[in-house]
Formats: sequence, structure tokens, C-alpha cells
Amino acid sequence: MLTFVGLGLQKNGLTLQGLKEARGADTVFIELYTSLVPGLTLNELEEKISNQIIVLNREAVEEHPDEILTAARDGKAVFLVPGDPMVATTHVDLRLRAEKIGIGTKIIHGPSIESAAPGLSGLQSYKFGRSATIPFPKTPSETPYIVVKQNKKLGLHTLLLLDIEASKKRYLTADEAIKIMLKLEEKLRADAFTPESLVVVVARAGTSDAEVKGGKAIDLSKLNFGSPPHVLIVPSKLHFFEAEALKILGNAPAEVVEKYVEK
Amino acid sequence: MLTFVGLGLQKNGLTLQGLKEARGADTVFIELYTSLVPGLTLNELEEKISNQIIVLNREAVEEHPDEILTAARDGKAVFLVPGDPMVATTHVDLRLRAEKIGIGTKIIHGPSIESAAPGLSGLQSYKFGRSATIPFPKTPSETPYIVVKQNKKLGLHTLLLLDIEASKKRYLTADEAIKIMLKLEEKLRADAFTPESLVVVVARAGTSDAEVKGGKAIDLSKLNFGSPPHVLIVPSKLHFFEAEALKILGNAPAEVVEKYVEK
Repeated sequence: MLTFVGLGLQKNGLTLQGLKEARGADTVFIELYTSLVPGLTLNELEEKISNQIIVLNREAVEEHPDEILTAARDGKAVFLVPGDPMVATTHVDLRLRAEKIGIGTKIIHGPSIESAAPGLSGLQSYKFGRSATIPFPKTPSETPYIVVKQNKKLGLHTLLLLDIEASKKRYLTADEAIKIMLKLEEKLRADAFTPESLVVVVARAGTSDAEVKGGKAIDLSKLNFGSPPHVLIVPSKLHFFEAEALKILGNAPAEVVEKYVEK
Repeated sequence: MLTFVGLGLQKNGLTLQGLKEARGADTVFIELYTSLVPGLTLNELEEKISNQIIVLNREAVEEHPDEILTAARDGKAVFLVPGDPMVATTHVDLRLRAEKIGIGTKIIHGPSIESAAPGLSGLQSYKFGRSATIPFPKTPSETPYIVVKQNKKLGLHTLLLLDIEASKKRYLTADEAIKIMLKLEEKLRADAFTPESLVVVVARAGTSDAEVKGGKAIDLSKLNFGSPPHVLIVPSKLHFFEAEALKILGNAPAEVVEKYVEK
């Protein structure tokens, strides 16, 4: 049996069910390259689950998962994953590989940035369109800009995740990401992400140190939001309640927010 | 201090951080009307958190939250909520009320159907457009149909939540919901949800008894998916991997799925 267990958004983001599964496993693996789990240390986690943990890099999960599959065939294997397990598409592949050779699989869900970021900002989750990821400048992509443009046309908000390179401890920061989006605006000119556009930064979602800040893109691009991970939200039309939330929870300037309120 | 704590998707869906907060609280409230948490019993939960729990109905949260606000002003109040706390829009209002009168608030996130249902189905979460809720027939709405139509036009999948009336223990079931959508197709005729359309039912997401089933709408409308909660996913264009997943994880017939694969 191969059980994928979500670690959630911070060091105690594991659920009680996840803890139980990890305690009862014959072999426990972890990957920490798809996202950052603030505060998590292997030693503390090993103590919590009373079990040893084997750390896997991207190659060992995506190209040579023999070690995982063998452990899952011969006993109970648990694979610990940041956030909610299947949000990173790479793990679906591993799950299908296991099922195809007759190894049962299951998922113990964890908190995900997909619902946490909307929740922290006070924006309504059913008003979010598709999400996208902003990659580092060395692998540029127009996709996040196009997704924001498409969502805005439909009156929908956009969650933008930021690239990470965990092996090098490099995390795209909100200010860098905003600058990347402003460059895409200069190139593609669809008025989807201008210096005047309302943007919301959510830093360290799910931790006791979480921060939400709304304002003009150009203003936020000059700020330092502290340690990672960060994400961006690009709001579209706002309900009156959402505008209130951005002012109260995100300290967004009233004159910026009010332009977006649906009449 | 008012801390919103997510209960997740089943009786052990609370995170370790959530457990700690509930144990350390002066007053603990719970609401169970925005969603169903399978297997959860108050007695067991009270034992787990070594604390008494006060159950609140919709009116006590939305119209007369004085009891919550007073407890949060005078001490540490924890408000336990199914899933991830702010997905139900009603709680944002309570949070803003507290902040406006100077009561600090925070959120301890929990697993949400918003990421769990895509994950269980093997469909990629960044390919989901906005979600919607299918209400009971007595309060009909064209919105879920329109959302599916809009998402499909963009090549995006749709998560459809199903209405609940917790006080009467009534939960809209997947077969009923499919029939409602088929009636909307007859009325609105945009080819967005026909008897031949591929649909995925996810029942009891997050529990050990979770079930995923893909197939033609008309075929699934004749099945009984067991105890609630259920949700629907209406896929749009499928990546090859997503098609594989629906066949393997959702037992979807190959000839139905393959029509949706992007060439």
C-alpha cells in the first residue's frame, strides 16, 4: 500500500489521520522540492511520527521510483508531501505507476495553498478562476499573464504560485514576481497587470507569521515580504465584503480597492 | 483572540496545530451546517481536545454572533469549522466583525474539498476554472450550468459542490445533482452537460471510504454512491495523463474518456 500524506503549510500542518498513517508505516519517504513547509525539520518530524524518514529528490520520485514502489509492494509505505498531495502534478504519475502494477494507493489530505490563500485574503473562493505559476526569469512564460487576463475578462480572481528551486534554496519572492508580471504587461499590453493594478501578496500562508498585503502593483513591488513562501492574488471585480476584507485584513488603500467594487 | 480552525474532511482531519489551539482555548465553538464531516462525533472530539464544545447553528453565527465575540474578547476562542475555514463565505463576515471591534483573528487551515476532489480524481488542479454549487430543486439556479459552459469554452474542468441542509440531515446526492444538470441542459441547450457528457463523481472525499467514478452523465445518474457528501467534476479537455487517471482511479470507460483527450 502506498499512502500519500499531506504535510500542509507549516510544521504542524499534518492531520491526526496523517500522523497515524505515518506512525503505522513500515517505510516513510518525504519530498521537499515541490514546496516549502516553514518550520519543518526532519528530526522533529521523525520524533513526532516515531519513525525514520527517507528524503527523496526529484529524480528519485519522478525517474527512478523503484525504492518507493518496492517498499509499497512489500509493506505499508507512506510518502509525505508538502501541502495537499496531488496539487503537484508529478505525484499523480507515481500513483498511477503503483496502481498499474497492483499496488493499492490512498491519499490523506492536508491543507493547501489553493484554499488557504483565498481564505486569508478574505476573497471568495468560488470567484477564483484557474491558477498559474510564475517561473524564474531564466525560464520565462507568458502563461501567468494570459491566465490573469482571461480570468479578469470573466470577472474572476487569479491565484499565482511562485516558482521554487528547493535544491538551491531559491524561492521566487513576491516583489520579484510582480516585476516579472509588469514586464509581461509591457510586452503584451492587455491592461491585465499594470503598475496601477490591485494585487494582493500572501506571505507564509498557514504559519503564525502569515502576512496579507493589498495595494498597487508598483507599490508592492518595492516591498520586502520576508521569508518565503509567497504567492500573489490578482483580484478582479470585488463584492463589497471582499473590498472590506482587503482593507481590514490586507491593509489595502481604500482608493485603490474601491475602483474594483461592483456597482 | 478568535481562531478559526479547519476540521478537514473526516473525523481526524484536524491538523496538529489545530488540535493544539483547540486544547489551549478558553471557549470552543463548532458549526456543522456548512458541510458534513463524516465520522465526526462531538463526544470523541471533546475527548481529543480535552475541552467542551458549544454547537452553533447558522443563526447564532450569522445573525447573533455575540456569544462568539464576547468569548473572543475576554479570552481565547476557537471556532471549529468543516474543511478549510474560509471556503464558506459566511465566516469571512464573522472575521471582519471581530477585527472591526479590535479582536485579533487567525486561521488554522484544514484540508478542503477544493483541492481534495481534483487530487482524488487525478485531474490537474491548475486546469480547474471557477467552482459552483448545485442547490436543491426548490431553489433552482442556472449558475452551475453556466459556470460549466464557461469553463469548457476555456478548456477547463469544473468542480460542482452539492447543497446541504444539515438541520434536516438532507444532502443533495450525485445522481440527483446530475439529473438537475441534465434538466438545465434541456432548457439552456449549450451542449455543456448532455447525457453523453463525461462526468466524475467523488463521494466521501478524504475518508477511508472515498469513491471516484467517471462515466457518461446518463449512466452515472442511475447509480447510488452511498452516504454523503458527494461532489461532481465536469472535465473539459484531458491531458493523456488525466485520461489515464480517470480510467485507473475512476473506472471510467475508455471509449468515453478518449473523446476528451487533447490531440
